[in-house]
Amino acid sequence: MITVMNDPSAPNRSRRRGASAADPGPPRSARYKQLRHPFAPQPLVSDDEIAGIHDTALRVLEELGMKILLEEAREIFATAGASVSGEMVRIGRDIVEAALETAPRRFTQNAANPAHAVTYEQGALVLKAGAGCPNAQDRTRGRRPGTLREFEETVKLCQSFDVIHGFTPCVEPQDVPPHLRHYAMTRAQLELGDKTMFVYSRGRKQVQEAFEMIRLGLKLSDDAFAGNIWALTGINTNSPRMLDRPMAQGIIDFARAGQLSVITPFCLAGAMAPITVAGSLTLQHAEALAGITLAQLARPGAPVCYGGFSSNVDMKSGAPAFGTPEHVKMQLGSGQLARLIGLPWRSAAGSASVTADMQSANENAMGVWGCLLSGATICVHGAGWLEGGLSFGYEKFINDVEILQSVAELCVPTDASANEIGFDALADVNPGGHFFATAHTMERYRDAFYTPLVASLDNYGTWEAAGAANSTERATQIWQSVLDEFVAPPGGPERAERVRGYVETATARGGAAPLD
Amino acid sequence: MITVMNDPSAPNRSRRRGASAADPGPPRSARYKQLRHPFAPQPLVSDDEIAGIHDTALRVLEELGMKILLEEAREIFATAGASVSGEMVRIGRDIVEAALETAPRRFTQNAANPAHAVTYEQGALVLKAGAGCPNAQDRTRGRRPGTLREFEETVKLCQSFDVIHGFTPCVEPQDVPPHLRHYAMTRAQLELGDKTMFVYSRGRKQVQEAFEMIRLGLKLSDDAFAGNIWALTGINTNSPRMLDRPMAQGIIDFARAGQLSVITPFCLAGAMAPITVAGSLTLQHAEALAGITLAQLARPGAPVCYGGFSSNVDMKSGAPAFGTPEHVKMQLGSGQLARLIGLPWRSAAGSASVTADMQSANENAMGVWGCLLSGATICVHGAGWLEGGLSFGYEKFINDVEILQSVAELCVPTDASANEIGFDALADVNPGGHFFATAHTMERYRDAFYTPLVASLDNYGTWEAAGAANSTERATQIWQSVLDEFVAPPGGPERAERVRGYVETATARGGAAPLD
Repeated sequence: MITVMNDPSAPNRSRRRGASAADPGPPRSARYKQLRHPFAPQPLVSDDEIAGIHDTALRVLEELGMKILLEEAREIFATAGASVSGEMVRIGRDIVEAALETAPRRFTQNAANPAHAVTYEQGALVLKAGAGCPNAQDRTRGRRPGTLREFEETVKLCQSFDVIHGFTPCVEPQDVPPHLRHYAMTRAQLELGDKTMFVYSRGRKQVQEAFEMIRLGLKLSDDAFAGNIWALTGINTNSPRMLDRPMAQGIIDFARAGQLSVITPFCLAGAMAPITVAGSLTLQHAEALAGITLAQLARPGAPVCYGGFSSNVDMKSGAPAFGTPEHVKMQLGSGQLARLIGLPWRSAAGSASVTADMQSANENAMGVWGCLLSGATICVHGAGWLEGGLSFGYEKFINDVEILQSVAELCVPTDASANEIGFDALADVNPGGHFFATAHTMERYRDAFYTPLVASLDNYGTWEAAGAANSTERATQIWQSVLDEFVAPPGGPERAERVRGYVETATARGGAAPLD
Repeated sequence: MITVMNDPSAPNRSRRRGASAADPGPPRSARYKQLRHPFAPQPLVSDDEIAGIHDTALRVLEELGMKILLEEAREIFATAGASVSGEMVRIGRDIVEAALETAPRRFTQNAANPAHAVTYEQGALVLKAGAGCPNAQDRTRGRRPGTLREFEETVKLCQSFDVIHGFTPCVEPQDVPPHLRHYAMTRAQLELGDKTMFVYSRGRKQVQEAFEMIRLGLKLSDDAFAGNIWALTGINTNSPRMLDRPMAQGIIDFARAGQLSVITPFCLAGAMAPITVAGSLTLQHAEALAGITLAQLARPGAPVCYGGFSSNVDMKSGAPAFGTPEHVKMQLGSGQLARLIGLPWRSAAGSASVTADMQSANENAMGVWGCLLSGATICVHGAGWLEGGLSFGYEKFINDVEILQSVAELCVPTDASANEIGFDALADVNPGGHFFATAHTMERYRDAFYTPLVASLDNYGTWEAAGAANSTERATQIWQSVLDEFVAPPGGPERAERVRGYVETATARGGAAPLD
């Protein structure tokens, strides 16, 4: 039974507590839409040591430089006074420090449904599903390359849970040719959802066409689009110390359009980054600062998030690992670096496991708690990410949503007033008695506790008699129900209709090839 | 492959990094023996609110009272000035406050191997396996009632991982008659292990006989035993507001012998405790304070731990739930209460799931992280606890140990010195290159990262070709290897031999029936 979906028309909702025909009020999950961190961020190292990492990162940019493959980006850096030699750009610390002055500390990404707008700042907690997976897997259809069907299904899944705060490109729709893919991905988000949107940076023309689709779909004037944030893109550097053409162009284009770049080096300690936590953090920080600086040079005040996605590899095989102690340490250090520069920042959970098993749960939980402990503004890959991002797992998604919902519950302050303590209730019940029937209980029982999504509280005998399905197996029925019962949010079909002609024309013109 | 066992003779150890025949030094797990919390404890509510809970708990003891079933305990309370009426004991706050003055803030439990001694105080982190399970389950033998075989196997499992800081009664050996069971459980801990020991409080005669076995086994004089802590017992109240005969007697006997009582109400919100977090915490606190007070009245200065094990029930079925948001909130509040009174304190992870699945992993991770966030001195049930304690799962234990080891890694401080940052290494590698062969990497690669116990980093194809075993399935081979390769620690057989005659004589005399 689906108990925590956010659709007020969901047929199961009135059965949430199963005990009353009275109006149950808004679903508990409504609390999950805007979260604030409940815990103080925890440091990895001392303030002096983090300042040392920051300083060394500035030295890396100044003395060693970044290889920047896009000429336009190199020109922007050169104009600002950076030293450009061939493709190498050495960026003085004064340039970086000036950029950090203009980067905004707080901004809001709008969505088709204003209730799903997301504010990014230190202290906010934004949860996202797994992203960028070429494959999908579930128990009924096995593991297969992602297609538009899977992409649309993941949009529906993300739309259906209030604790998922916007869309990510969960699965790559590989059956759509690359020059047309941005049309399909943007249209699906507009039609099937009303949360914050994602656009890939795969070349200027694709980006500008996606922006135009958002303007058309949401009926925004040019000013209304440009004056607010409607789209988010993910920027990855090529560690160590390289920024490729589409990523550099994406930074520039999103900045100039006033849209949001999340600039995230992907530093795997021991492989493309130094083997130490401190060394990987230094490289990550240098690369992120280079990207942030480019955004601010392209347009001072452009919204950017600092990104940290560093983990380690297995030194025997070189395989990336996630949810490791080193991953969490990198999160803690990234949070310290983000607080040092004052920007909202993106971290990530995720799993290296290839299947929806205990390993995958434990790895993801480590990363989710790492996000909580490090004060991450955005926790990406928090649901569904398997194989280090090579596949999106449907059963994994459902089980991970349970953890995200539990975390969201922890963000709700606890009432410890005298009425909540309930001395009279304590006095009502004799030693050895029970509280089931006290007035204190009766007033609260319908909504006192979080209702699990996939966790079973059946005892062994009941569970065995019901088929002995584990939580991975039970999750199949849940995602199937979500998809079967899915209804596009209000306005979705109209938004799709508004972009239909544009897409037809653009397709007929030949689409837009990605930038190499 | 077992990579993190603590036995230096384990045949796999030299293969830990697989790349060098040189002496690899002490196993990484040696770091796990004595842990300190890496994070600042986080509050649930304000200081004023926690003081309000404390004050209300004192009022509960003073005005409502505890039903105390053991006459000797009532007499101790009466002598101290409490108001006794029938079995009801009303305890003035002055008596409780005086007791809190004499309870020690820091103490050490000794073990046969001094390297496994455990210090309890605020800031220490002591990890324990699941306890009290009547049943056991694993993939090869299914679910069955616990016997001495299972009890001994769990002693071996706990002995084999440095991250498990002592013995708990993981599985109840139900094939041993209750009047002889304490002999078997104490002998097994002495013979198969050298870590801190547990003794059940099931009546004075059993307790004193177990103490005598420890004295004999460890060759301790009466003074050496009485002057130090060698045994730990778990005390549960019968919520609400009742303390039964064996538990009350256990508190008295352990206190008088200078041994450690961990006094833990088990408050399930909505059932045997108020439905609110604040109300359950108030009841828990009142009951724990009553037990602590009894210990201090029996012998001022007796070592006690404050215990909190509160969670919620499912209000539809009444089934206990673990690893819920409410469970974590109770942990946070319990930590605040424990800090208020300054005592070391016991919290717990655990799982309601009936099988070693993602639910079980997620529930346990919630509780383990709850222990970290709340500053718990002891995290019980951190590995192997299924069905809310009705069974101990072997595969669950192995997967949970992975999380405990990861947590232990987080307790190791991170070095962020200039040498660790490695500017020269960063300068060594050109943009787009890799760090595999830098001197910085070569100096560190053998032991840079935590090596997983059960997690697989294989890619999908390799994993599938190797049999597509998930982490629960892989765990079977691991616990089997641990048991197959188990060698009792030095002195174990001798300790068993030293108690053999005592047990034979005591058995011939008829053993010791548990107190009702």
